[in-house]
Amino acid sequence: MKFCSHCGASVNQRIPSGDNRPRFVCDQCQAIHYQNPRIIAGCLPVHGEQVLLCKRAIEPRRGYWTLPAGFMENGETLAEAAARETWEEACAQVRALELYTLFDLPHIHQVYMFFRAELHEGAFGIGEESLEVRLFHEHEIPWSELAFPTIGRTLECFFADRKHRVFPVRNEAITRWQKPSPTA
Amino acid sequence: MKFCSHCGASVNQRIPSGDNRPRFVCDQCQAIHYQNPRIIAGCLPVHGEQVLLCKRAIEPRRGYWTLPAGFMENGETLAEAAARETWEEACAQVRALELYTLFDLPHIHQVYMFFRAELHEGAFGIGEESLEVRLFHEHEIPWSELAFPTIGRTLECFFADRKHRVFPVRNEAITRWQKPSPTA
Repeated sequence: MKFCSHCGASVNQRIPSGDNRPRFVCDQCQAIHYQNPRIIAGCLPVHGEQVLLCKRAIEPRRGYWTLPAGFMENGETLAEAAARETWEEACAQVRALELYTLFDLPHIHQVYMFFRAELHEGAFGIGEESLEVRLFHEHEIPWSELAFPTIGRTLECFFADRKHRVFPVRNEAITRWQKPSPTA
Repeated sequence: MKFCSHCGASVNQRIPSGDNRPRFVCDQCQAIHYQNPRIIAGCLPVHGEQVLLCKRAIEPRRGYWTLPAGFMENGETLAEAAARETWEEACAQVRALELYTLFDLPHIHQVYMFFRAELHEGAFGIGEESLEVRLFHEHEIPWSELAFPTIGRTLECFFADRKHRVFPVRNEAITRWQKPSPTA
């Protein structure tokens, strides 16, 4: 951030009076520009014994498998954001959404939240941001080709919890990204 | 938003290519300025049979009772944000944080998240943003003087769940603010 989005003057980074953190401050109009973590909401769509994954058509991690997820927009709920992303990436309608995993990624100012969900009538397609979309049994999961640690951890929890049919909500921190390996 | 924070040129609101929502776009440097919901993290500090509330010293809702909570900052986890706010508003250290309630407030682009937590050694003080801080038994809760619906709903769930000693994580939408009544 270099310029004030309210008045167009240059901003400076300093600790405002009464605060304890450096912020971008406009000395012309006095605006303080706060920067906060963003939410990524997604679904773990379940159909019988299978789960739905999407192969990413976009960077980062193009060609790797992910759960449908993306930035939550203003004006929607967490569950609405998760369902919208599932529709956009996998042309799939989901029902019975249940909050499941929350991951803190403090180093990149993000919080991921996944909902377990029923894939309506097992129907899906290939959204614009996906190269391929398909259902996987547990033994078919491409563990070494998952896009992000949040995806692998959500799937790992799900298959473990499914044995007991109890799905506690989990909040964990992931403090570093998995180092991306060259695209296969 | 009127000016591009990258280059200082005027921004326009339009739907960028490949998108489906209006965004603030800079036609000079091509930056797209996304706006996303913000997270408010807080604690329900518990000490024996009592819970800790703070009387707000700041607007909005000055003079009303709240749980310690505030905007999550970049670089911290949800639990760290909740603990920091509890320290700042109630000079209280908390332990054993467990995610408890998540509220969608889509009309004001916020998501509230509260953790149940143990108040360490029952110790607390009065932070700069508080007029008063105290422990309440259930029958002492000032229900008509709570600052926000998220506070009342979290307390309501807690006292109900405490009867069964089971505290499921809850995600609910609150689509309108309670109309503020005149300050007592």
